[in-house]
Amino acid sequence: MKQMRVSTGKKIELKDITDQINGVLGEIGRQEGVCLVFCPHTTAGIIVNENADPDVRRDLERAFDKAVPAVRFDHAEGNSPAHFLSSLTGPSVMLPVENGRLKLGTWQGVFLCEYDGPRTREVWVRIQ
Amino acid sequence: MKQMRVSTGKKIELKDITDQINGVLGEIGRQEGVCLVFCPHTTAGIIVNENADPDVRRDLERAFDKAVPAVRFDHAEGNSPAHFLSSLTGPSVMLPVENGRLKLGTWQGVFLCEYDGPRTREVWVRIQ
Amino acid sequence: MKQMRVSTGKKIELKDITDQINGVLGEIGRQEGVCLVFCPHTTAGIIVNENADPDVRRDLERAFDKAVPAVRFDHAEGNSPAHFLSSLTGPSVMLPVENGRLKLGTWQGVFLCEYDGPRTREVWVRIQ
Repeated sequence: MKQMRVSTGKKIELKDITDQINGVLGEIGRQEGVCLVFCPHTTAGIIVNENADPDVRRDLERAFDKAVPAVRFDHAEGNSPAHFLSSLTGPSVMLPVENGRLKLGTWQGVFLCEYDGPRTREVWVRIQ
Repeated sequence: MKQMRVSTGKKIELKDITDQINGVLGEIGRQEGVCLVFCPHTTAGIIVNENADPDVRRDLERAFDKAVPAVRFDHAEGNSPAHFLSSLTGPSVMLPVENGRLKLGTWQGVFLCEYDGPRTREVWVRIQ
Repeated sequence: MKQMRVSTGKKIELKDITDQINGVLGEIGRQEGVCLVFCPHTTAGIIVNENADPDVRRDLERAFDKAVPAVRFDHAEGNSPAHFLSSLTGPSVMLPVENGRLKLGTWQGVFLCEYDGPRTREVWVRIQ
């Protein structure tokens, strides 16, 4: 399992990590399989979505910000909305690998979703 | 990795692809493992839910349609709600395989979730 | 594939199953790999989130309860909100295993999310 570091600059930010994952896959050297991309944090997550038009990323950031229900939150750190969003999108994705790189759809990229930034996060990559 | 094609007839539609996946598993011929069902699109996704009562599928289609927050969307294609829903439900599932078929719970089926249809989509299947 | 049983006491309840999964991994005996934790039900799911402060769990339970859109539900069993939440959070997670145990982030635990309890549920565990 290899570790990457990803830094964000905003409270809620989708950061494209596709190229960084492909770099790690190059270090691992396995040509084919399925890749686990795992985020070991409870106020961030991993999604796959369009990375061609940056408006999509910004639209998603605004939508996630408003997707948290208006309920009472008791957790003293005050970041329960981020824990909720992290639960919705999940801590990981499994992605096909071919020729030593992620095999994605034409418009797909992999994003770290920061819900409680700005911060520096770890992402773990393992190929099966 | 095998490819399937799935066609939908509505804007938002859950299409049961359980039998089609089992057909592909039959072609692959592996008897046991874990199966990646991956959707290489950014305005569709894969979920697992009840496929016994069709009312469940229709209830979910209505709920997804209303689950998008009312925020400003700038993406010029106008399908940012579909990108949001695709981010929520995710591009893939990992499912157990036994005796050459999906090993699911009694009431479970696998659905392609179309959020920006009608369209014909690809679904990729790989067994580990 | 090993089966666990998990009982809940409320309608919506997040139950920490991290230790129980580690117990099953001990029985399986594989030291390294990726672990599928799969919930074979359509009104429950599996998430990963903070298990240090119990307020986080309770905040998430309240947020999930309010995260269901106000649409018409026709399914006669009356538990379509639970089917919706199960679709959002997904039936499974894939988690890294090292030294025969789950390799998670410092604050992460694995939870069964019960959306239509109280009930006793199955959880299936398999390591690849």
